[in-house]
Amino acid sequence: VRLLVTGAGGFIGQTVARALLDYPQFEAVQLVDRTVPAIPDDPRFSAQAHDLSAGAAIDTMLADVDAVIHLAAIPGGSAEADPVASRRVNIDATLRLLEHLDGRSAPARFVYASSIAVFGEITRPIDDDTRPAPTLVYGTHKRMVELALADFHRRGRVSTIALRLPGIVARPRGNAGLRSAFMSDVFHAAAADEAFVMPVGPEATMWIMSAARAAENLIRAALLPSTQGQALTLPALRITAEQLVTTLYADPTKVQFARDIELQRKFGAFPPLATPAAEMLGFSHDGSLDALVAAVR
Amino acid sequence: VRLLVTGAGGFIGQTVARALLDYPQFEAVQLVDRTVPAIPDDPRFSAQAHDLSAGAAIDTMLADVDAVIHLAAIPGGSAEADPVASRRVNIDATLRLLEHLDGRSAPARFVYASSIAVFGEITRPIDDDTRPAPTLVYGTHKRMVELALADFHRRGRVSTIALRLPGIVARPRGNAGLRSAFMSDVFHAAAADEAFVMPVGPEATMWIMSAARAAENLIRAALLPSTQGQALTLPALRITAEQLVTTLYADPTKVQFARDIELQRKFGAFPPLATPAAEMLGFSHDGSLDALVAAVR
Repeated sequence: VRLLVTGAGGFIGQTVARALLDYPQFEAVQLVDRTVPAIPDDPRFSAQAHDLSAGAAIDTMLADVDAVIHLAAIPGGSAEADPVASRRVNIDATLRLLEHLDGRSAPARFVYASSIAVFGEITRPIDDDTRPAPTLVYGTHKRMVELALADFHRRGRVSTIALRLPGIVARPRGNAGLRSAFMSDVFHAAAADEAFVMPVGPEATMWIMSAARAAENLIRAALLPSTQGQALTLPALRITAEQLVTTLYADPTKVQFARDIELQRKFGAFPPLATPAAEMLGFSHDGSLDALVAAVR
Repeated sequence: VRLLVTGAGGFIGQTVARALLDYPQFEAVQLVDRTVPAIPDDPRFSAQAHDLSAGAAIDTMLADVDAVIHLAAIPGGSAEADPVASRRVNIDATLRLLEHLDGRSAPARFVYASSIAVFGEITRPIDDDTRPAPTLVYGTHKRMVELALADFHRRGRVSTIALRLPGIVARPRGNAGLRSAFMSDVFHAAAADEAFVMPVGPEATMWIMSAARAAENLIRAALLPSTQGQALTLPALRITAEQLVTTLYADPTKVQFARDIELQRKFGAFPPLATPAAEMLGFSHDGSLDALVAAVR
């Protein structure tokens, strides 16, 4: 498999790149981002700068590619602040990639990093039958692309699959584009044994996945023998803020809980999650909070 | 209200233009299409040529506009044959219009002609809770835009409403872009007292609406005091092919029924339809088949 990874300089992209070292099935891996991304020390890897949103020619880039893991995206907070920029990257650039992959005799695999944001404000338990109902720009654009992916797949031209990622930890600190940054920041604070203020109460519930596990799931999607053009909600660990703090901190009193009602409603009130469709295909969460924390460290 | 109508040279567009003569609420009406559309003899109307899909500047065109009825579209058969052209017109041009209307102190009204195609193959009764599940390019793109409209509305920047139109009759003959053309062609054949072959059985069921009624509904949407960014399935008359033929023809034996199983499955097997949300807002079908036929003649 000759793979292209977009957004490869980003947090998940770099984790995917490192994880790919363990997969000899990939004979060539192109890493692409707006600036040249770092590459692992392995002759299979190459890297290049390419602004997908600029509309430049991408045929050459895609010529020798059998599979794409498409991570390039404007994140939630930034998309909300600049919907036009989100449209250019999150919709237009994605559709352009699909159109350039369209019509090959052997359909290329297209793995799309979607998001639980397609469900909007999640107040009731989610399962595989839950109807997407986005309430922010980011989730709206992700859902629009999911629909486009299903249509490309139906026409038999591209073998698509969308994975709806839960909160991925631990993102680098200071990621202002993400309103859910506290979920990651607490990992960094704990690693430095620093005090931390959680903007939710101890009872707050979250769905989280380590970046390493997210990478394994994305790579699995690229290697599946076939797809049905489906959008799959990935399994996630559902934990409370208190469980997270007591697992991360030897001394949990270093953490203060200062409940921000609005934030907790959006990012700290996640109901039970059932994901049998994804599990049937071998997608998985981290297994346990201890395993997740170990994967993050 | 200063109104812009896109796709105004088309079949529904011209019907909307004529219907607007009866609405003094519109102080100015700009009719736009790729070639200059015909305009009614009324000083309120102006016409211009503008290719919305070419990405040309549209700020001037939109400067003096309070409301848009957006009809410009690549129809179903053509969209399926050329998905990239459909994307340019049905998605890109629509989003560009919305982005140019975005952010006014008094949000503009945006009335979008969506389609029952968002439901894909309609095999079970449809009501306001039915989940869209498009199965063709056209319906996919219509649904993607519905999602975008809801998001523009949520952000309070444009007052959007999408009306899902059923089969509109009687479209001009020879409309190769529409696979459901027989529903219109039988009207023309009956008017000329010609023999006609219906490609469905007499028991086939269809949802239809006259173009005049569709125009009234679109104009109503432009005049609603407020909207909720919703996508409404319009009421439609549900009739059988036999009812249609016996109403249209003095001598129904001039019509032969030659059931095309595939076509009947797609365009002649429409289940019951319940549209309370649209009806609550005053949207309506033609009332009776006799009234529909009178409206078409």
